[in-house]
Amino acid sequence: MAKVVTHIERADAATIAGLAGAGVATVHEAQGRIGLLGSRLRPIYAGARIAGSAVTVSVPPGDNWMMHVAIEQLRDGDVLVVAPTSPCEDGYFGDLLATSAMARGCRGLVIDAGVRDVRDLTAMGFPVWSRAISAQGTVKATLGSVNIDLVCAGELVRAGDVIIADDDGVCVVRREDAAAVLAQAQAREANEEAKRTRLAAGELGLDIYAMRDALTDKGLRYE
Amino acid sequence: MAKVVTHIERADAATIAGLAGAGVATVHEAQGRIGLLGSRLRPIYAGARIAGSAVTVSVPPGDNWMMHVAIEQLRDGDVLVVAPTSPCEDGYFGDLLATSAMARGCRGLVIDAGVRDVRDLTAMGFPVWSRAISAQGTVKATLGSVNIDLVCAGELVRAGDVIIADDDGVCVVRREDAAAVLAQAQAREANEEAKRTRLAAGELGLDIYAMRDALTDKGLRYE
Amino acid sequence: MAKVVTHIERADAATIAGLAGAGVATVHEAQGRIGLLGSRLRPIYAGARIAGSAVTVSVPPGDNWMMHVAIEQLRDGDVLVVAPTSPCEDGYFGDLLATSAMARGCRGLVIDAGVRDVRDLTAMGFPVWSRAISAQGTVKATLGSVNIDLVCAGELVRAGDVIIADDDGVCVVRREDAAAVLAQAQAREANEEAKRTRLAAGELGLDIYAMRDALTDKGLRYE
Amino acid sequence: MAKVVTHIERADAATIAGLAGAGVATVHEAQGRIGLLGSRLRPIYAGARIAGSAVTVSVPPGDNWMMHVAIEQLRDGDVLVVAPTSPCEDGYFGDLLATSAMARGCRGLVIDAGVRDVRDLTAMGFPVWSRAISAQGTVKATLGSVNIDLVCAGELVRAGDVIIADDDGVCVVRREDAAAVLAQAQAREANEEAKRTRLAAGELGLDIYAMRDALTDKGLRYE
Amino acid sequence: MAKVVTHIERADAATIAGLAGAGVATVHEAQGRIGLLGSRLRPIYAGARIAGSAVTVSVPPGDNWMMHVAIEQLRDGDVLVVAPTSPCEDGYFGDLLATSAMARGCRGLVIDAGVRDVRDLTAMGFPVWSRAISAQGTVKATLGSVNIDLVCAGELVRAGDVIIADDDGVCVVRREDAAAVLAQAQAREANEEAKRTRLAAGELGLDIYAMRDALTDKGLRYE
Amino acid sequence: MAKVVTHIERADAATIAGLAGAGVATVHEAQGRIGLLGSRLRPIYAGARIAGSAVTVSVPPGDNWMMHVAIEQLRDGDVLVVAPTSPCEDGYFGDLLATSAMARGCRGLVIDAGVRDVRDLTAMGFPVWSRAISAQGTVKATLGSVNIDLVCAGELVRAGDVIIADDDGVCVVRREDAAAVLAQAQAREANEEAKRTRLAAGELGLDIYAMRDALTDKGLRYE
Repeated sequence: MAKVVTHIERADAATIAGLAGAGVATVHEAQGRIGLLGSRLRPIYAGARIAGSAVTVSVPPGDNWMMHVAIEQLRDGDVLVVAPTSPCEDGYFGDLLATSAMARGCRGLVIDAGVRDVRDLTAMGFPVWSRAISAQGTVKATLGSVNIDLVCAGELVRAGDVIIADDDGVCVVRREDAAAVLAQAQAREANEEAKRTRLAAGELGLDIYAMRDALTDKGLRYE
Repeated sequence: MAKVVTHIERADAATIAGLAGAGVATVHEAQGRIGLLGSRLRPIYAGARIAGSAVTVSVPPGDNWMMHVAIEQLRDGDVLVVAPTSPCEDGYFGDLLATSAMARGCRGLVIDAGVRDVRDLTAMGFPVWSRAISAQGTVKATLGSVNIDLVCAGELVRAGDVIIADDDGVCVVRREDAAAVLAQAQAREANEEAKRTRLAAGELGLDIYAMRDALTDKGLRYE
Repeated sequence: MAKVVTHIERADAATIAGLAGAGVATVHEAQGRIGLLGSRLRPIYAGARIAGSAVTVSVPPGDNWMMHVAIEQLRDGDVLVVAPTSPCEDGYFGDLLATSAMARGCRGLVIDAGVRDVRDLTAMGFPVWSRAISAQGTVKATLGSVNIDLVCAGELVRAGDVIIADDDGVCVVRREDAAAVLAQAQAREANEEAKRTRLAAGELGLDIYAMRDALTDKGLRYE
Repeated sequence: MAKVVTHIERADAATIAGLAGAGVATVHEAQGRIGLLGSRLRPIYAGARIAGSAVTVSVPPGDNWMMHVAIEQLRDGDVLVVAPTSPCEDGYFGDLLATSAMARGCRGLVIDAGVRDVRDLTAMGFPVWSRAISAQGTVKATLGSVNIDLVCAGELVRAGDVIIADDDGVCVVRREDAAAVLAQAQAREANEEAKRTRLAAGELGLDIYAMRDALTDKGLRYE
Repeated sequence: MAKVVTHIERADAATIAGLAGAGVATVHEAQGRIGLLGSRLRPIYAGARIAGSAVTVSVPPGDNWMMHVAIEQLRDGDVLVVAPTSPCEDGYFGDLLATSAMARGCRGLVIDAGVRDVRDLTAMGFPVWSRAISAQGTVKATLGSVNIDLVCAGELVRAGDVIIADDDGVCVVRREDAAAVLAQAQAREANEEAKRTRLAAGELGLDIYAMRDALTDKGLRYE
Repeated sequence: MAKVVTHIERADAATIAGLAGAGVATVHEAQGRIGLLGSRLRPIYAGARIAGSAVTVSVPPGDNWMMHVAIEQLRDGDVLVVAPTSPCEDGYFGDLLATSAMARGCRGLVIDAGVRDVRDLTAMGFPVWSRAISAQGTVKATLGSVNIDLVCAGELVRAGDVIIADDDGVCVVRREDAAAVLAQAQAREANEEAKRTRLAAGELGLDIYAMRDALTDKGLRYE
């Protein structure tokens, strides 16, 4: 049942760029607090903020053969999203695969497993969000699949969905919802800017958001 | 039973400043190896070293309403100490709340849960020690309490206790013990300085601390 | 049964230096994907890459007395490898012990437990790979052993084995295999350099490694 | 965006009964080693083996309001499948909810969170597979959804999919695949029976499965 | 600072017996959903349900000397509550200590560490709630304290507080609140009995608790 | 480098039987508190107590091919000891392999990974100590080794070492030390019997072991 889906739909580039600019926390809120991958995925270095179209890779534990298959499917602006079929921390990806992925325009890797050569990857500016950093080598013996629906760190990801990743983690937006979510995210950002100014001036959220009555109604008591 | 205690006692500012200078490891030793919060609390960026008076916040899982209530209770030099009533990694706190907390003189956040907008918090210089980094949004539906005794990462913290936090973790000192602990910490630092010089010169701890006889008495054998 | 083995064999300095240059991922692959310590060991700061001869220390939980005993056994170019006899995250090692270890030429510490004073250790340039960062103090009451065979983070380490550590983790090479592994590692690096160039030019791993037939034979299907 | 889908398709009862008889390990193998929920889900008592149609429930952390909503959607032969929107171990379900669920013909509960009253549930014969046993109470303040697609313990579950659960864990079979998977499972069982007899008689798997040549070809060496 | 407090106040026996009868989940709810120890504490065998007065023991990691000291402080009806000063899974307690504790009327052990001889303890009917089962031996070298306030599995326990433990976990009730909590628990049980009958008859919680309007007001949508 | 060592030395049967009778906790103490495997290994059912000679199996993650190879090496009285080369919870072993192993006289399985068909294994009376229960299937694609030295759950195990396992966990005794350890264990048991009687009669460990002076000398204070 191993297969490679060679044609996938992608969101348009401007929408993707907009989502990258908004960042994970804002996009997650904008789409109704859904789509956040598990917090066990952490960036290998601080400061990267990307968005791109998911090329998904389902891999056996301890076997990175399908990474080579997946790289052929990458187009400029894509993000690799990798999930093992059972929990595994091995180092599926290192500087050679990153060199190859970058040559095809890949913007980064999201993997619910391990990665290695992180010093090189950092120097190359190739961002990775992973569950572990591990030099543990893998074999090339068993097939997996590329561009199928999969669950990565607890969230369903479909090929072509938009992946946003930054220091706060990783979020997925369905391809077909991307434009609407971006509009919501930008509205949210505009709204937050005004609040930030008021809060910085010392005004309280209790007053800005008019929370005092609701708190009293619920029974909050001041002593 | 949700309540906000509006008046708390605090240690004096000079004592708190002295404890910040001594740092977590020294303060922890100085008070007899007690008061260290669990090592799952890690700083979102390296290099911060703070001390302040605890404003405690007990929050329901996945609900950050009480953070707004707590911010009103902050005074210059305080540290927010937040614990959920059951284990939770959601992102209770981000750049807007940090803006508000900083406007009131808050020195940092200690939270046995998640935090988000960490790139912004880092840029703002607002230090956080947390159990997780997570963009997961929270609701505002259920009350909690402010300035009650609570357990954060395995240690009892009382409102007004002194919190010391740096790259080694987070330590709590009872408000009433703060001056005595500072005196011990400073004595310890003076004592360590001389030892550091001798150790750097190649002298052994075995000799400086006169351990050889005790080791032999216990039965240590050299082969 | 506590003992200190005072004489251990070490690999030659040039071999050790070569292994440091190759790094953990390459050395691990070069010796057949064995010898990697568990990924729970992480560096306290990024960028260090060391190799040295293991001085092993078996310690009781919460007791760092034997660290002082072990430091006397260090020679220039050694690496301390510490494992507790049951799981423990306490801070066994801080800036004073590091000062002493550096004075004896120690290149770093690998510990399946906790470490503290990490800001100072970073400033001193003393690299540590640990399971936790924790200020939790320890006692000096119970013996352990130095330079015995022990298991650290799931791998057997013998005194005098070569330890390689960098941002990818920690690897052990048997002393007697060190020269052969270095030769393999250097061959591997030479081989990788050519591949890196081809991959950077856009050639695919599928073609460079001639994988397409094997994938088809296994049943991979393109849709 | 909270919603309840009131009409769902279910597999036919005979197929579901057949899958229950085959058990989790056989079904998982029969459908190509997919569909197994994470091993953190464990039964509260040994010996139960069930299958049923999934009624899915997405719940906020620490809030079990939607459990009451979900129970109304249950039909005879259903299994509740519950996942919190962020990691949570609270006790969402106890003997009162079980009484209600049983009255509607529910066969069991699969929950990636906590459960309580386990002594009563055991006495009632209501099986539960959960991530934790915890008496921690929950609130009823925030909506979730019933019968939407969700990820439970790392696997996608759709309302109406067949859930099989026993001492080995929990497996999901797509509703539309259920009959075909059952056929495969029964073929597999028949095949295993003959092998079991030969193995019990002392014949080796190496010979029954004719593995010796393949092992030799791969390079296995006997010493 | 090691000390043993020899005189502690205890709740009256009838109240304690009543709380045992109510069980953990009911008592936890009755006192407002507070006081539950972390779910990592699990019983070594199913079916025990106890309540008793806490004799607290703070122990160093890997050192069970204070267990002997604590046993002398036990009176009929007490429960030992043990917490290590840093995380530890060693086996602090086995059949000999259990024999001694039972001879003094101890009803059980709650320990945020390990226990051993569990087959013997089960045969003796001495219930234990622990974080781990481990045969790992401990030393007797360093002092701790008995009957001080301590944090066990995330909850503050004071000597003389009432501990309730059953298959759902462990709950603490302040000694001075015990009678009031028991009254609440009994009221709760009476109330639940009527509901259980109605639920068993097929009536829905949605109707019994009149939830439908509130769900609609919050925006729940049926499709 | 995959290999099978076909000839291994074993301890004599009477010694092994004696160690089984003593049990894990006593044997672990008798040999100086060493050799205990990590507490993450738990029995799939309560009450089994075995000892046998280790046949070790090093397996790749997610690949159980070598289990078939290992079974051929089993003799009457052996115990399979299995460790994956990187962390893995897959179900390497089920009822068919157990049938085969039992036919060759195997006494049980110790595996730092997963196992399945646990209901059948329980009914067959084939005891297993494992890290997880998981139905997750494995492949047969990559070699491993049999009867090499390996680390299982943190302890070095050599082929032919004696494995003791019961409800307290798993302990390894070097083959060459087995007789001496048995003698120590039996001496220990005899000694414990007398103490048990005195403790049951209400005498205190503080007096039996004459601890009071040492406690006072260390500074213990009674209040």
